[in-house]
Amino acid sequence: MTVRVAVIGAGIMGADHARIVSEELAGADLQVVCDVSEASARRVAEENSAQDVSTDPVAAIRRKDVDAVLIASPDATHASLTLEAIKLGKPVLCEKPLALTSEDCLAVIEAECAIGRQFVQVGFMRRFDPSYVDMKDTLCAGKIGGAIMMHNFHRNVEAPAGFSGLMAITNSAPHEFDAVRYVLDAEIVSISAFEPKRCTSGACNPVVLVMETSEGQLITVEVNNNAAYGYDVRAELVGKEGAVSLGGLAAVRVDRSLSSSVAYAADWRPRFHEAYRLQNKAWIASITTGVPAAGAANAWDGYCATAIAEAGARSLESGEKTRVDLAERSALYDPAGTAA
Amino acid sequence: MTVRVAVIGAGIMGADHARIVSEELAGADLQVVCDVSEASARRVAEENSAQDVSTDPVAAIRRKDVDAVLIASPDATHASLTLEAIKLGKPVLCEKPLALTSEDCLAVIEAECAIGRQFVQVGFMRRFDPSYVDMKDTLCAGKIGGAIMMHNFHRNVEAPAGFSGLMAITNSAPHEFDAVRYVLDAEIVSISAFEPKRCTSGACNPVVLVMETSEGQLITVEVNNNAAYGYDVRAELVGKEGAVSLGGLAAVRVDRSLSSSVAYAADWRPRFHEAYRLQNKAWIASITTGVPAAGAANAWDGYCATAIAEAGARSLESGEKTRVDLAERSALYDPAGTAA
Amino acid sequence: MTVRVAVIGAGIMGADHARIVSEELAGADLQVVCDVSEASARRVAEENSAQDVSTDPVAAIRRKDVDAVLIASPDATHASLTLEAIKLGKPVLCEKPLALTSEDCLAVIEAECAIGRQFVQVGFMRRFDPSYVDMKDTLCAGKIGGAIMMHNFHRNVEAPAGFSGLMAITNSAPHEFDAVRYVLDAEIVSISAFEPKRCTSGACNPVVLVMETSEGQLITVEVNNNAAYGYDVRAELVGKEGAVSLGGLAAVRVDRSLSSSVAYAADWRPRFHEAYRLQNKAWIASITTGVPAAGAANAWDGYCATAIAEAGARSLESGEKTRVDLAERSALYDPAGTAA
Amino acid sequence: MTVRVAVIGAGIMGADHARIVSEELAGADLQVVCDVSEASARRVAEENSAQDVSTDPVAAIRRKDVDAVLIASPDATHASLTLEAIKLGKPVLCEKPLALTSEDCLAVIEAECAIGRQFVQVGFMRRFDPSYVDMKDTLCAGKIGGAIMMHNFHRNVEAPAGFSGLMAITNSAPHEFDAVRYVLDAEIVSISAFEPKRCTSGACNPVVLVMETSEGQLITVEVNNNAAYGYDVRAELVGKEGAVSLGGLAAVRVDRSLSSSVAYAADWRPRFHEAYRLQNKAWIASITTGVPAAGAANAWDGYCATAIAEAGARSLESGEKTRVDLAERSALYDPAGTAA
Repeated sequence: MTVRVAVIGAGIMGADHARIVSEELAGADLQVVCDVSEASARRVAEENSAQDVSTDPVAAIRRKDVDAVLIASPDATHASLTLEAIKLGKPVLCEKPLALTSEDCLAVIEAECAIGRQFVQVGFMRRFDPSYVDMKDTLCAGKIGGAIMMHNFHRNVEAPAGFSGLMAITNSAPHEFDAVRYVLDAEIVSISAFEPKRCTSGACNPVVLVMETSEGQLITVEVNNNAAYGYDVRAELVGKEGAVSLGGLAAVRVDRSLSSSVAYAADWRPRFHEAYRLQNKAWIASITTGVPAAGAANAWDGYCATAIAEAGARSLESGEKTRVDLAERSALYDPAGTAA
Repeated sequence: MTVRVAVIGAGIMGADHARIVSEELAGADLQVVCDVSEASARRVAEENSAQDVSTDPVAAIRRKDVDAVLIASPDATHASLTLEAIKLGKPVLCEKPLALTSEDCLAVIEAECAIGRQFVQVGFMRRFDPSYVDMKDTLCAGKIGGAIMMHNFHRNVEAPAGFSGLMAITNSAPHEFDAVRYVLDAEIVSISAFEPKRCTSGACNPVVLVMETSEGQLITVEVNNNAAYGYDVRAELVGKEGAVSLGGLAAVRVDRSLSSSVAYAADWRPRFHEAYRLQNKAWIASITTGVPAAGAANAWDGYCATAIAEAGARSLESGEKTRVDLAERSALYDPAGTAA
Repeated sequence: MTVRVAVIGAGIMGADHARIVSEELAGADLQVVCDVSEASARRVAEENSAQDVSTDPVAAIRRKDVDAVLIASPDATHASLTLEAIKLGKPVLCEKPLALTSEDCLAVIEAECAIGRQFVQVGFMRRFDPSYVDMKDTLCAGKIGGAIMMHNFHRNVEAPAGFSGLMAITNSAPHEFDAVRYVLDAEIVSISAFEPKRCTSGACNPVVLVMETSEGQLITVEVNNNAAYGYDVRAELVGKEGAVSLGGLAAVRVDRSLSSSVAYAADWRPRFHEAYRLQNKAWIASITTGVPAAGAANAWDGYCATAIAEAGARSLESGEKTRVDLAERSALYDPAGTAA
Repeated sequence: MTVRVAVIGAGIMGADHARIVSEELAGADLQVVCDVSEASARRVAEENSAQDVSTDPVAAIRRKDVDAVLIASPDATHASLTLEAIKLGKPVLCEKPLALTSEDCLAVIEAECAIGRQFVQVGFMRRFDPSYVDMKDTLCAGKIGGAIMMHNFHRNVEAPAGFSGLMAITNSAPHEFDAVRYVLDAEIVSISAFEPKRCTSGACNPVVLVMETSEGQLITVEVNNNAAYGYDVRAELVGKEGAVSLGGLAAVRVDRSLSSSVAYAADWRPRFHEAYRLQNKAWIASITTGVPAAGAANAWDGYCATAIAEAGARSLESGEKTRVDLAERSALYDPAGTAA
């Protein structure tokens, strides 16, 4: 069985997903590329030998020759397009965030619960990154004892003009929130946000977040969208008997000019290239088998990431430690639960 | 267009190739798995949803519903099966070695030259390993000046009983010969083989090879098939202004028991997992386009690796520096040449 | 001129200092080793060929044949012994802390100010560790742009029974407070203390501290006295254009049993061996020249470290961000100031 | 007891030794600095507070107020000055080489044997480098099984004009010969020298040496005096069960401009700074105790290094594997032997 995929959105992420569906996956066809800009849709479709193009996302989702929907359109459209696909019973891989607000995330959850089945995988691709998987495996194998702390660093070369510490929390930090929840299998219950006063605007707007989990663990996150030196994601998990860190992944080391160096990428794509491929492969397999991909983020995970970001934004505003209040989790998302 | 592949051989390598064709490639179907052991063929076919099984490689190659042949059967069968495929005009991806002797390699070359077209890609997968590619790119970009030396280390955990230094040269070192030729775009013209007297049999049989290239470069290779500590492949390329080395690729680092450690794999598959996938992807693409995969090893490269190994074996026997005498290269294999 | 040194205290630190004075320094004689336990004093004196022993610290300090005093006795005695030495006009190298309370530190400062000269160097040896010096030099050379954040990790193998998060702040964290102040040339103005609820007693009592500096920088510190895996001190300084981290300092790397590893020391001495030697060498030189050692911690630095720890302890108690209120700094300690 | 030292030679090495004797050692006085250039002698003497200067090395050695002699004058003078000191019964620390020819080395050995006592320590400082010591300890502790191979890399930034591959063998490689002999406690019995034809003159003159030991081990050495990128010394010792390599020793790592880098020094001094200090400290201690420093190179070791270099030079000339023929070792140099 071949899964016919509609990719909604032909921007950077959409183009990358179209390429993965077309070139890197067995059992998937790139049926249609959709973008409000017909030129963009056409360009990405041609580059990846898609069957067709569209400028109407709802129409693209509704096509009879589309089995599954990959949403990589602007963030504000994620929730409504996801709801459209659920209404049609079509599986969705939705780029993060699932929705801009936790309320809108809950609407997706309600739609799934009403049907009693999961349709949505959220694009927190780090859950498929071999190094995060290895970190979690190391913890689960008991090699570092019980987890007590986790330190995370998220650095981009340069943020768009006008990017703020608040946006670091709402746009970038959710990847960290989800990585923490994935590795620890614990919920984040409080968040305290800090900004260096020296740089809270323009080209210097890092934030440091301190979080507590339901298991009494302490988490730190630095998000630095203007780190300048390179795209760099680090994480260290500290247990009672040891620690495990993301490794170095440089293909080569160069010695010249009194320096031994390895390169940083300019953005996230080389770093998470394999994670995206494996994520999308697992999504296609889940459609074929009808069982949600093991370890993947579901709509509940998407909701939590957005809800934690909202609490983080409030903490940045108030300067106080802020509780993360979550809705009650439906049994549909029980870890041991399976899709009906 | 979907390429229907016959995988010949259902051992470790064949099973891995069957999995890659079935699960990791767009545009390829695993048509038939062939092994002299029907049980093996059936097991690998089932695990990878192949259409059919076979115990007769020639018959499998001749099937009308087979477009291309991936040869992973015992080394002694490589040349004759490759010739069979060429006779039928079917493209081949042949695991190394192309043949056990340089004479048999030349027979394959003659078959291709008689038709005037390349059909064979040899499975020197390191040419698709991102770190070797990056090493070559670093050289070509002029970052280390002109290449003058290259140091290579090839270590396995444990060799089969009875493995000898001679076999290290004929079975393992060809990967190194090809990697050197690929990175340097130079021919190997002499080879001197050394064995530590302390261990020339049984579970300790390393060899050290010193080679000269047509460009006046000096190459060292250690092949240590009983290195015990892990599967470890290293290379350093030294230029007039700098050096470039294969990087560390550990997914995670673990701190415990007064030690900070990264893991070695027990065999080559995790290390070259991505190289195999990209190699096979390039092969499938080359079939679709009709143009040999850029950077891939062709029959000439397969011949050279075997011929160098033969010279290395003579050097080990004589204790002398030994010249590598190669046949004249047909224009079919000119670097700038294209398949007719 | 040879400086005749009295080492007060013959515990772990005192024994190490006696050895350094006796074996590693030019221009210094180990005149007397003093400890309330005569046996300890005698043992350390013999091991290091000291001229004499004593069980009375005040008498040892007052000896005519003692030019300078190195205080490594129990923390509670530091301030009063330091005051005794100042009264006699003898230079002091006082192990951290200068005193248990900021009030007692101020008494030392008052004694120096009354005379109008610095007598005290505080044993914050990291200021002489080549890696911290290199980090500061990298910042000052403009290689990473202006400093905006610093992340510090302080891990011991195992704390004494009964060690608490509070003690992590008052006993261990001062090394971090001083390292931050040294590297950044900035004052710490607020501190927020966090403990993972999962482990706030017994063999698991880490704390995480978030601090702000007078220059608007954000600092994080993890102190984990039961890290189990090894003695490990890390620091990363983040600037607007780059970052600088303490390097790896392993003498050798060992490959065995599917693992590539470097060793951690069991305690701080191997890690800071060179720092102690250089610190003590600079102290002896400062006595000879009469000019305080460049970069060394003075009484004011000792006071600040204790005052920040007190604020940290209050924050841990209250769960709130706490301001660090410092006394006014006397001109005696102006960075550009020199001893009269 | 204070050892009064004459430093002969006020060039780079002599100045460094004068500084170490004056500033870094307990129990030693820098009595006299001697150089044929009085200006040089005077400059180094003043910088290091020496008691006196001299332009006559023999006179300096003969001074009554000189207890021990540190020879850092031009290589051609080493043997005769060493013999002068032996004649007077004064201990010598002689920079490598002990002599320019193995014959001259033997003359020193004869002088010692005639008296029946060792007077000479040769400045192969790597024997005191913590990483080589750690490598040897790792081997002796059985952590890597029996040693079977060792790979060594010796790279300088730039050689003086006119430096040749031959000089690489006679001037630089002896450090490697001695390091191998020290780590393995084995003799080198044959040597094969190779040069990349592409660069055998001027600013490109590396050599690769393959050696066999008395224990049947295989050794490779690359000497590259124009490596351009930095001063870099590496070694890996391969055992039957594992391997041990010299570690990375960078004080800091800098992240900037899409690169993560650590620095190389421009010459050997920062790399072996600690080795020189510990070597000289052990020498002073050996004078006080009358027992040769444990692990230090003696005259026999100095002879072997020169004799191996001579064999290497012959191999480079002939292109053949060349046997290292050593004189018979006097019992004075038996590993278990002690100075009479």
